[in-house]
Amino acid sequence: MHGRSASPSADGVWHNLHVLPDADPDHVMRDAALVVEDGRILWIGAHAALPAHYAALPCHDGAGAWVTPGLIDCHTHLVYGGQRADEFAMRLAGANYEDIARAGGGIASTVRLTRAASEQELFDTAAARLRPLLAEGVTTIEIKSGYGLSLEAERRQLRVARQLGQAFGVTVSTTFLGAHALPPEYAGRADEYIDLVCDTMMPALAEEGLVDAVDAFCETIGFSPAQTERVFRAAQALGLPVKLHAEQLSNLQGAALAARYAALSADHLEHLDESSVVAMAAAGTVAVLLPGAFYFLRDTKVPPIDLLRRHGVPMAVSTDHNPGTSPTTSLLLMMNMACTLFRLTVPEVLAGVTRHAATALGLSDRAGRLEAGRAADFVLWDVASPAELAYWFGRNPAACVVRQGRIFPRETHV
Amino acid sequence: MHGRSASPSADGVWHNLHVLPDADPDHVMRDAALVVEDGRILWIGAHAALPAHYAALPCHDGAGAWVTPGLIDCHTHLVYGGQRADEFAMRLAGANYEDIARAGGGIASTVRLTRAASEQELFDTAAARLRPLLAEGVTTIEIKSGYGLSLEAERRQLRVARQLGQAFGVTVSTTFLGAHALPPEYAGRADEYIDLVCDTMMPALAEEGLVDAVDAFCETIGFSPAQTERVFRAAQALGLPVKLHAEQLSNLQGAALAARYAALSADHLEHLDESSVVAMAAAGTVAVLLPGAFYFLRDTKVPPIDLLRRHGVPMAVSTDHNPGTSPTTSLLLMMNMACTLFRLTVPEVLAGVTRHAATALGLSDRAGRLEAGRAADFVLWDVASPAELAYWFGRNPAACVVRQGRIFPRETHV
Ligand SMILES: [Zn+2]
Ligand SMILES: [Zn+2]
Repeated sequence: MHGRSASPSADGVWHNLHVLPDADPDHVMRDAALVVEDGRILWIGAHAALPAHYAALPCHDGAGAWVTPGLIDCHTHLVYGGQRADEFAMRLAGANYEDIARAGGGIASTVRLTRAASEQELFDTAAARLRPLLAEGVTTIEIKSGYGLSLEAERRQLRVARQLGQAFGVTVSTTFLGAHALPPEYAGRADEYIDLVCDTMMPALAEEGLVDAVDAFCETIGFSPAQTERVFRAAQALGLPVKLHAEQLSNLQGAALAARYAALSADHLEHLDESSVVAMAAAGTVAVLLPGAFYFLRDTKVPPIDLLRRHGVPMAVSTDHNPGTSPTTSLLLMMNMACTLFRLTVPEVLAGVTRHAATALGLSDRAGRLEAGRAADFVLWDVASPAELAYWFGRNPAACVVRQGRIFPRETHV
Repeated sequence: MHGRSASPSADGVWHNLHVLPDADPDHVMRDAALVVEDGRILWIGAHAALPAHYAALPCHDGAGAWVTPGLIDCHTHLVYGGQRADEFAMRLAGANYEDIARAGGGIASTVRLTRAASEQELFDTAAARLRPLLAEGVTTIEIKSGYGLSLEAERRQLRVARQLGQAFGVTVSTTFLGAHALPPEYAGRADEYIDLVCDTMMPALAEEGLVDAVDAFCETIGFSPAQTERVFRAAQALGLPVKLHAEQLSNLQGAALAARYAALSADHLEHLDESSVVAMAAAGTVAVLLPGAFYFLRDTKVPPIDLLRRHGVPMAVSTDHNPGTSPTTSLLLMMNMACTLFRLTVPEVLAGVTRHAATALGLSDRAGRLEAGRAADFVLWDVASPAELAYWFGRNPAACVVRQGRIFPRETHV
């Protein structure tokens, strides 16, 4: 249903629209028009100023919709085997960590099922989770590896990520997260596993064109700052940008470390301190906020939004889709949660899923705002004002998604 | 798209299914079959035990899906004018209560816009909010008045509720909530307004067949217990069952009052005490939990789930859809929130949106469980286990909804 070929072309003049080109309320264009040619935006501006020679092009009536850039989900673990619903049920029924481990649960179960899954199974299950995101207007998505934890299984995850991009006509940014967890066969030998990540897995996968960025899980229950830095050095040597899962459960100064390596982003950040905020600001590192994990884990420590604001660190918002701590497939819900739980403003969350999310992926020159020359990735929303995108929760007001110059009206989003 | 007439009949044999007939995990039927005739369930049981004479009927392959009863959203304020997204944005930007009141916000704005809206406008906007609920498998929904606050405007809300039931083939239970808020023209004259509710509005609307139950908002910022009791007496005199918004923000002993009037339900209940729980248990009053409002208001006082459990009070879960404190259109999300925020178990939330929600509407003999003789209201879910219905958030795994004997496959849910 989301294949490119079956969908009509968006080429032509889109009119009867109000456009929010870059999440800045001062840039709103009421009664605007957009011209699309060969899947790119050729012209955008007030309808009254539309050059006359476009009048002969096919015409798409926006019916008074609001238009934003296509949404960007800049932090996901979308490709994996199995799911953890039964573990969720067990926990609610009173099972503790040991009970769940004994029943084969936790991240180890996801690693086991990801390793056991065929490429086709990984594709099919991830596609089922991608569809609701696409239906909400996601046109760019980051997908991490990190449940394979072997060269072969990490490769499979990243290949599937690329295949999803091809099959659905969605821009996929791949992130190698070999340093996500210690695989069971390396128990007690974390440094040796980091050798494997840096010396074998990363160069091989990069060589195969499967790695757009490199990430690690820097945490007391993950990898140490020293191990993280080894991963960053290996990435640097290969010319790959880095990002980091940092300061989610404790403050290991991961974000400051990431900033020293000019990281694209540091993500989670509940325990971030002010000196790290300053370092991120100086490095241009985006703060990726993940309210779904905060909610699902019943965390109470909110990331330091005021500090991030005060020092001008760009804030992105993402699903962190993963089976253990954020099994959500709604970026719109994350916008509501970022407002409700973290007190972001509406313009901040709109920038957080467009402009700043693009920066978090190193794609700020290509995605996240509407302007002439960029890909025709945009969404028509059936709302009276853009604030509705963050206000409703559990509701999708996307009337029509244009992705890579193809039209996906609401009824094809199933 | 959800009209009855256009949808194929569900009559025939449904097989290749696993059935959860009443949310009790001990009653699971694997490899089950269902026979539907004239929109009712004629037979249900193990496929191996299917009587041979049904073999000639049309056949519907469930493809291994899990089947539950149609979901029941037992507490909504679905019909109203306008929405409050701009107020949401203002609040996040730092506006206080007075700023919002000056800008014409708050419940007063919803009353003003509801009074100003035509019946068609109320129908169209409510239909847009109903569709996502239907797509998630809701087959029965309660809809309250309470934003009109005049005979004519309350009537309009309840008429639209009935029309939605007709147009979408969904069972609608109407609740007269005239005692929701004090209309501006009665400022300082609450008792006189209660006279109007009891002596004029309620009898007229009941006479017109628009009232299945009567509700009130018993709260320091709403109506007093004495005023609430007058509403209950008027309902009793008309033979109408009652329910109550109780103990959301403070403990006014509303639930105990409701129990004295054998209320179908007491709803919200964050500040409920043990003696009231005992009274509810004795009266058979259902506790309707509304985690969406708890979440959206950033409440921290969780309803006393352990007490409700210990005393055997049935717990239902609902959206409380309303523009001010719970603008959600996802009952599945409420299931996740009831688990995540209130620590309900998976069987408890499944019962909370089926069996116990039916009891909260006085419909336990007709809805909320699958058995021969009942309406063919059921959902086929594309999940490996029913726990997935509560585990994912912002995801709808409904593969096919059967509502009043009509089939609505996923692609018609737009
Ligand atoms: Zn993550
Ligand atoms: Zn309510």
